[in-house]
Amino acid sequence: MKRQDGREQFQIRPMEIKTEVSAFAEGSAQVTLGKTVVFITASVEQKVPAFLKGTGQGWVTAEYSMLPRATRERTSREQARSGRSLEIQRLIGRAMRACVDLSQLGERTITLDCDVLQADGGTRTAAITGSWVAMVEALRWMKRIGLLNSIPLLEQVGAISVGILNDEVLLDLTFEEDSAARVDLNLAMTEKGKIVEIQGTGEGGPFSREELTALIDAGWKGIQEIFKIQRNALKLR
Amino acid sequence: MKRQDGREQFQIRPMEIKTEVSAFAEGSAQVTLGKTVVFITASVEQKVPAFLKGTGQGWVTAEYSMLPRATRERTSREQARSGRSLEIQRLIGRAMRACVDLSQLGERTITLDCDVLQADGGTRTAAITGSWVAMVEALRWMKRIGLLNSIPLLEQVGAISVGILNDEVLLDLTFEEDSAARVDLNLAMTEKGKIVEIQGTGEGGPFSREELTALIDAGWKGIQEIFKIQRNALKLR
Amino acid sequence: MKRQDGREQFQIRPMEIKTEVSAFAEGSAQVTLGKTVVFITASVEQKVPAFLKGTGQGWVTAEYSMLPRATRERTSREQARSGRSLEIQRLIGRAMRACVDLSQLGERTITLDCDVLQADGGTRTAAITGSWVAMVEALRWMKRIGLLNSIPLLEQVGAISVGILNDEVLLDLTFEEDSAARVDLNLAMTEKGKIVEIQGTGEGGPFSREELTALIDAGWKGIQEIFKIQRNALKLR
Amino acid sequence: MKRQDGREQFQIRPMEIKTEVSAFAEGSAQVTLGKTVVFITASVEQKVPAFLKGTGQGWVTAEYSMLPRATRERTSREQARSGRSLEIQRLIGRAMRACVDLSQLGERTITLDCDVLQADGGTRTAAITGSWVAMVEALRWMKRIGLLNSIPLLEQVGAISVGILNDEVLLDLTFEEDSAARVDLNLAMTEKGKIVEIQGTGEGGPFSREELTALIDAGWKGIQEIFKIQRNALKLR
Amino acid sequence: MKRQDGREQFQIRPMEIKTEVSAFAEGSAQVTLGKTVVFITASVEQKVPAFLKGTGQGWVTAEYSMLPRATRERTSREQARSGRSLEIQRLIGRAMRACVDLSQLGERTITLDCDVLQADGGTRTAAITGSWVAMVEALRWMKRIGLLNSIPLLEQVGAISVGILNDEVLLDLTFEEDSAARVDLNLAMTEKGKIVEIQGTGEGGPFSREELTALIDAGWKGIQEIFKIQRNALKLR
Amino acid sequence: MKRQDGREQFQIRPMEIKTEVSAFAEGSAQVTLGKTVVFITASVEQKVPAFLKGTGQGWVTAEYSMLPRATRERTSREQARSGRSLEIQRLIGRAMRACVDLSQLGERTITLDCDVLQADGGTRTAAITGSWVAMVEALRWMKRIGLLNSIPLLEQVGAISVGILNDEVLLDLTFEEDSAARVDLNLAMTEKGKIVEIQGTGEGGPFSREELTALIDAGWKGIQEIFKIQRNALKLR
Repeated sequence: MKRQDGREQFQIRPMEIKTEVSAFAEGSAQVTLGKTVVFITASVEQKVPAFLKGTGQGWVTAEYSMLPRATRERTSREQARSGRSLEIQRLIGRAMRACVDLSQLGERTITLDCDVLQADGGTRTAAITGSWVAMVEALRWMKRIGLLNSIPLLEQVGAISVGILNDEVLLDLTFEEDSAARVDLNLAMTEKGKIVEIQGTGEGGPFSREELTALIDAGWKGIQEIFKIQRNALKLR
Repeated sequence: MKRQDGREQFQIRPMEIKTEVSAFAEGSAQVTLGKTVVFITASVEQKVPAFLKGTGQGWVTAEYSMLPRATRERTSREQARSGRSLEIQRLIGRAMRACVDLSQLGERTITLDCDVLQADGGTRTAAITGSWVAMVEALRWMKRIGLLNSIPLLEQVGAISVGILNDEVLLDLTFEEDSAARVDLNLAMTEKGKIVEIQGTGEGGPFSREELTALIDAGWKGIQEIFKIQRNALKLR
Repeated sequence: MKRQDGREQFQIRPMEIKTEVSAFAEGSAQVTLGKTVVFITASVEQKVPAFLKGTGQGWVTAEYSMLPRATRERTSREQARSGRSLEIQRLIGRAMRACVDLSQLGERTITLDCDVLQADGGTRTAAITGSWVAMVEALRWMKRIGLLNSIPLLEQVGAISVGILNDEVLLDLTFEEDSAARVDLNLAMTEKGKIVEIQGTGEGGPFSREELTALIDAGWKGIQEIFKIQRNALKLR
Repeated sequence: MKRQDGREQFQIRPMEIKTEVSAFAEGSAQVTLGKTVVFITASVEQKVPAFLKGTGQGWVTAEYSMLPRATRERTSREQARSGRSLEIQRLIGRAMRACVDLSQLGERTITLDCDVLQADGGTRTAAITGSWVAMVEALRWMKRIGLLNSIPLLEQVGAISVGILNDEVLLDLTFEEDSAARVDLNLAMTEKGKIVEIQGTGEGGPFSREELTALIDAGWKGIQEIFKIQRNALKLR
Repeated sequence: MKRQDGREQFQIRPMEIKTEVSAFAEGSAQVTLGKTVVFITASVEQKVPAFLKGTGQGWVTAEYSMLPRATRERTSREQARSGRSLEIQRLIGRAMRACVDLSQLGERTITLDCDVLQADGGTRTAAITGSWVAMVEALRWMKRIGLLNSIPLLEQVGAISVGILNDEVLLDLTFEEDSAARVDLNLAMTEKGKIVEIQGTGEGGPFSREELTALIDAGWKGIQEIFKIQRNALKLR
Repeated sequence: MKRQDGREQFQIRPMEIKTEVSAFAEGSAQVTLGKTVVFITASVEQKVPAFLKGTGQGWVTAEYSMLPRATRERTSREQARSGRSLEIQRLIGRAMRACVDLSQLGERTITLDCDVLQADGGTRTAAITGSWVAMVEALRWMKRIGLLNSIPLLEQVGAISVGILNDEVLLDLTFEEDSAARVDLNLAMTEKGKIVEIQGTGEGGPFSREELTALIDAGWKGIQEIFKIQRNALKLR
């Protein structure tokens, strides 16, 4: 059974990652995934949170926000900085910290600002996918100007959403599919097939462990495609 | 190898759930899990969020907060309502909505206020475990006074944290264990062994799918014990 | 004429003070007065407000808040930090500062966090009564670990509410009595019968100086009972 | 022993009340008490708080604020709306409600905005004294345009501060005297010598019941003078 | 004398306006002016501010914000919604209202969200220029779906910044030029050469009326070029 | 044709500037312009914004606010600190900085607090006019106590509003005239007839360059009168 936009069950939407989209940021990327568009900058600053001062260790953090009219209906700027945004930016930050050796950064913070220009489902995973690219750009810049001897990257991380709709596992849900899905799961994984972040909710009804396996299988399929797009964007390999 | 507090690898801390801890709320519960203490009230109100008005459907939501000195060091009241709190209360709300038939509630909202009196790891899962008990109490009250004909409960839900520390899966982490863990996973499951919410982070390094399986196995072991404690608290069966 | 809950005119509700109710705070107390329950922690921190820096003197301050469902109807968390809360916490702070020799504390702050779990009138005076106990516990802790040579306590302070309802002076008003009272007076006094704080309002009509005398007489009767309960809680004398 | 500004122990500072100081407000007054200056407007609006809707009853409320440079040092506008301000405006509101028959007002609110242009002690009592004048002006306006048949004034209310400095009771403390005082008491009373609001603090040490009596005696002396100044301002009698 | 980027004194930077840059908004435009990039959506909503309810008249308003890393250094999201932003969005709103017949809109609001992706001087005038284009798109959409019979556009409006640097009038200042300029003037004008908004500041020293004339002459030169770019973007004429 | 209040087309309302209106501020002025009344204090503080630290240079800034009942209808205190206020205070700050040699101030900030007691049009220009007087007073104080050797004043600055109503240029608009005007222009100029700040809006329809000339001519006429009133207030010449 075909999906509304003609995709197969385990097919992601057309995805594009552009780099160097900001003239000023140390790293940047714009991710397009179907109608979802996220603009990401990576800023390197000579400061760390209070709890890291004097440790010689660095930090990676993220902020996530939606433009008021990223959505079908306009939402106010206050709402656009809601609990949902805070939940998502914490998720992005954790995923990024998992793939960098913070002890090699020096007392510096990389801030990933993920601003959603257009939202049609999958914004948080697109933000993770693009943040990884922008962060690599920023690390390269740090090496180029001599702040780092080597790039302290532990893992490549990509992310995608999966869900269960009408008892069928679907890869990369649109907003409309997501709204009707029984289960919604966001997955960030590394090249070696390990999990960095898993966040699944059966708000429309719980899901079995077999369903969990099927969801991760589907997600992993999508993330492998995403790895290629990330590498192309970065001209890696 | 024994844990610092003498527990086995897959042993939860002593847990107690008291009900009727509030003289005014329609339902209430106080959950003690080792040194973690969460005070929960369930409030029934004749109102629903704007998007449900006129649908005849109800809503369940949650708020989570920590008292300033729930922690080893005092934190300010502003910090106690941080992004972390918002992330957690969204998680609790989703888990509770998954186990109630909202269409049977009428246009009413049940608000679960989870206030942490003492925090030593596992506060969010203790809040879910206790919220389920307080919500059942509130639903019973609604039936008792005639607002409901039957109790629209779809599932029993319990929750626990698991993690990986020194490459060993541990059940029910204390704050100290959690701080040192490579992987931290929160799990809410139903009686039938289905998953309501899974939220895992490899902030200290990613985890394999085999590790995920071991984590869920451990969590399920703990949640089955929790089910008994919930049922005893509610004098069920 | 008996009161609604069967009490005599000058009888306080059953009162209990538990200490060591927090595993982490330097001092703590939970005060139960009828259906009113206040949870109090005393936190000792190595800092003082800006205006005391360099003076060698310490500070005592208080914060007061109500859980959303402490009351018969749920109030939002925003409302729970209203002008009323700020007025009350200033009162508690002043009363506590009046009974400690701040110059003996060193540049340290004791913060009394008074969180109302259940509110049925008299929360501010119960908070003062319990804050004194929690503060003594914290001072004892400071002496025990060597921060103080002796305990710089100037006074024992207890507090109670009194009021005039149907032209009759009543001791320790419930929420219901308080709502109908013409006059409402909160009183904090020392062992020697001196006044630390007096705050009386004739919102339902002014009161004469004779009535003021009768109110203080009644309050002093109640506070003397409270002194015994405080001393028992602290195993004093 | 003379006071620093040459006054006797029981002498208030030169006081002046100007009315009609606002071209737009329904009532207004500017109170000068030594160097303390408070600008007050009374606004009549066709609305009541939610809890009064449909009761036919009116409401009186107050807001209190200080201009940033009312004080010797500039304070920021944020600080100028602090807990202290909220405590004071609640006090003013209660005192004003005590002297009006709210059931005669209709569903209308009188808001007394008390903005301190210059602060040298006694701002809250000057605000009460002037609010009473501005409120009478507003009630007269309501009668004049036909909103009221008669003026529903129950009491004349004046207020002053008293304190104990060097074991001596003083009337109407300046900022400097207040800072050094052991006891600080604010008193609002009616023509018949009844008390509307009493708020006393022994922050520098508790005070005896005899001292309380002496403080009220002194305050009453000052308030009787204030009554004359209020009546002159309003051309009463 | 050539400018740092090689431009002539009265030459604007390369400018591009893309339309239909949002999949969801009723109108949209992205303006690039040198390194300055502003993303603009026009949202049509069936509501008006309180003061217009029942008048049958519509409203046009604007919001302006900068992404945190639009600038050379990252600024926090809080700072990005500063007084400067509020000043600018009021300017944009006024300019847009001046060129629409609000009485023809019906009780609807067009909100122009101007989000600066990259900032290198001239963001407020680029926002006006692009807002006009996005608004025309939204008006065309309103006509297309039958909300309007004709497009109630009174004027074409374009805007540019001018300034005086080293006593020389310059057109379209970069951030660097703007920082060093003695005079900074923003100008929005109509096709007929009339002024919609003029806002000039001699923060580095006042300017003569002759200088004002020269500034407007230069601005008008630039705005005439902008008109062509706007018309091309809209395929007008 | 006479104006509603009997004035000629190019006549300003009766204006009065009182100095030394604050007992504590280093400089102060109260400006009355018809029914508009602005109370201004100039505070000198030994601090500068972060970007000036270590430069030896000073700063001048302004804050603008309206009392809640400065207007015909009461506005809430929150509204009184709106975007409009922020826009205006930025304008005042820029105008004041343009007439002082900041490099001569030392690392000090002069803050001009402009609080509108009564608002009937022209509040922002009255605030500029009075801020200049209060600032001169503060500079004189700085010289008197030895903080300055000479008064680093570059210019005298006065300000007024002009507008076009029924196609007629009017000087110094009242609130009522302003509400109906097609064009509204605020002008701050120096003794030599140079412009410090010009801010004009054709919200009711654009204006021609000839109209701009006529508006500035009218404004300059009014500002020359204001210079005299400023000088008299300061007993200059």
